Amino acid sequence: MEGDCGTAIATETAMMPPAWNASLVGASRSADRLHTPALVLDLECFEVNVARMVTIARSGQCRLRPHVKGPKSTAVAKALVTAGAEGIACATVFEAETMAGAGLDDLLVTTPLVQQSSIERLVGLAGWRKVVLVVDHPTAAEALSRESVAAGLVIPVLVDVDVGQRRTGVGTEADLVALAMRVNDLPGLRFGGIQAYYGHLQGVADHARRDTLAREQLQRLSAMVAELRRAGLPPEIVTGGGTGTATSDASSCIFTELQPGSFPFIDAAYEKEDLAGDGTAGFRPALFVASTVINAAQPDRVTIDAGMKAIPTDGPAPRVVRSALRYEIAGDEFGFLYPAEGSETLPRLGDRVLIVPPHCDTALNLHRWLHVVRDGTVVDIWEIEARGEW
Amino acid sequence: MEGDCGTAIATETAMMPPAWNASLVGASRSADRLHTPALVLDLECFEVNVARMVTIARSGQCRLRPHVKGPKSTAVAKALVTAGAEGIACATVFEAETMAGAGLDDLLVTTPLVQQSSIERLVGLAGWRKVVLVVDHPTAAEALSRESVAAGLVIPVLVDVDVGQRRTGVGTEADLVALAMRVNDLPGLRFGGIQAYYGHLQGVADHARRDTLAREQLQRLSAMVAELRRAGLPPEIVTGGGTGTATSDASSCIFTELQPGSFPFIDAAYEKEDLAGDGTAGFRPALFVASTVINAAQPDRVTIDAGMKAIPTDGPAPRVVRSALRYEIAGDEFGFLYPAEGSETLPRLGDRVLIVPPHCDTALNLHRWLHVVRDGTVVDIWEIEARGEW
Repeated sequence: MEGDCGTAIATETAMMPPAWNASLVGASRSADRLHTPALVLDLECFEVNVARMVTIARSGQCRLRPHVKGPKSTAVAKALVTAGAEGIACATVFEAETMAGAGLDDLLVTTPLVQQSSIERLVGLAGWRKVVLVVDHPTAAEALSRESVAAGLVIPVLVDVDVGQRRTGVGTEADLVALAMRVNDLPGLRFGGIQAYYGHLQGVADHARRDTLAREQLQRLSAMVAELRRAGLPPEIVTGGGTGTATSDASSCIFTELQPGSFPFIDAAYEKEDLAGDGTAGFRPALFVASTVINAAQPDRVTIDAGMKAIPTDGPAPRVVRSALRYEIAGDEFGFLYPAEGSETLPRLGDRVLIVPPHCDTALNLHRWLHVVRDGTVVDIWEIEARGEW
Repeated sequence: MEGDCGTAIATETAMMPPAWNASLVGASRSADRLHTPALVLDLECFEVNVARMVTIARSGQCRLRPHVKGPKSTAVAKALVTAGAEGIACATVFEAETMAGAGLDDLLVTTPLVQQSSIERLVGLAGWRKVVLVVDHPTAAEALSRESVAAGLVIPVLVDVDVGQRRTGVGTEADLVALAMRVNDLPGLRFGGIQAYYGHLQGVADHARRDTLAREQLQRLSAMVAELRRAGLPPEIVTGGGTGTATSDASSCIFTELQPGSFPFIDAAYEKEDLAGDGTAGFRPALFVASTVINAAQPDRVTIDAGMKAIPTDGPAPRVVRSALRYEIAGDEFGFLYPAEGSETLPRLGDRVLIVPPHCDTALNLHRWLHVVRDGTVVDIWEIEARGEW
């Protein structure tokens, strides 16, 4: 912990990993002895994925500001910064407070502000760390201005623009320019640029189709940037993009920074996408749920100890590693494994299976501990601290 | 914290609720000022639900041993015991350790044992609290016996029987009797009875149909009990049942204890079921996700701050309280609200909405804090401590 920790900031004692798994750290081939279900990070694949995204961002002269709404872990955020990330993006106030508490700096909170409690907490944080905030409505800008002035700060603020998802953001160039001018005029705020995230395009599997759709939105974004320039408000920051569109985003010459989130982990959804443009994801699955067969009494299936509380239900079917077994949720704490072809031998009672979850963000959100494995050995256990609070 | 806390038991300092919501406790009508998303418990409905289940269990001379795999909270478990529960049921080792650490006793761990780490941890716990364990395979019984003997204990063990879900348990009377005899013969163990849970029947919406299916399984269970008696092993405990089948379970004269879990909370799935036999659920929804409208720029929908990390995606559609608005997941942190009829007025920017989640267990599992509300005032904040560990 560094700096002057204001009273409004949530801090807590760093927790120790549980004894039953902590004793495995450093023990040869210890990954097979983890108490399951357990969330596992393959460190080698993680490092390859992160290096690849750093290269993509640099190829487009973009800063890489990874989104930590997925990992919600200060250890992951620090690993990303060490590998070349410049600043991080957070979805929630609590994520930003947690990251700040662990010494991370230059925090963009990507969710447009509305709640007074969010504004108060983030202005508190801005007295302590570099914080960049987002608005998409003048009411929020005005409330933020009041708090910022009261705190004696000048906070950089981005205007969120809607690039086709119709979820947050202003929709027209006129609204964008009007809000940017309002932000610029308000005391305690500094217009810092724009945020444009097309989350609905990240999951388009076909590379050419996804690239075409991204470029349509990038063209709109380009027109918005031109309009801001004409209004005398050239955006210093243009932030957005995700893992699915990273190559299009980096080569666009529009974004000054990219904020992808899933790339270190990948999941059963992303691994099916043609992200590299050569029919492959380019990135490697690095996140797994380790599970144990706890019942093998049925002829047609076995029961494992990973259910809805260990593997999320959104997204495609989870994939069983090195197997054609089909996973099916069997309750809060149970899953079934079926042979895909009717011919495959089922695992036996007590056997371990590794599962690629459907969606990395929601999988990480279900677990408190990320068991970091290299070459089959547990080398560290990282806490996923920012889960379950906002 | 009471008793002699063994070194193998995970304990941690009780955490304080976050400052931004803790300041609301006791402030009149403060529920509307919670930082959202926030999980809310309506204390009055909770108390009515718990009293109803206590009455159902007592009507059948059954002990009520509520399952805490849903709440995963020691404060909830203590409230249940105060209201008349005798002992509690846990799904995971960590739940049992967490409950024991808070002073709760008589803990049934309902998941059949397989992992050596589970056996070691639970034998550690059994040196400290009354613990009842479950097996469905002789290998587990033998491993448990070894640990129990080494610890100088005699642990009551139930045999899990499959009553139609084909998920855990032994399937035939012969296997049941053989395993019960094995448990009875092994040193360090005492055959305590049987566990029979038909989770697949809990969600059958029609009362008569659900009752018929439950009674079919209860008949099988009755035959199993008779077979155990003939073998000289009358079961002291026959445990099982859930919220959906509670009235059938209590009136069966077979169960000695019921282990329902959802009844204090209810959810969008259970509230549609005819649980009372009069076309209604009988129980009241007591669990809600409070959320804020963060974008109202679109003509046909608004965006709220509760997405996949605040509202689970398993189960039926979430229900918006006192409204016909239709909720749709819009990402990790976002939801859309649409008018159901096209005619309803949409909520405005900054408005609060309360949502009944699809599934109470997985909703509780997403949140760290349960904001306890009576008459619109936050009266307490309870931690959901046992999430994300196993």
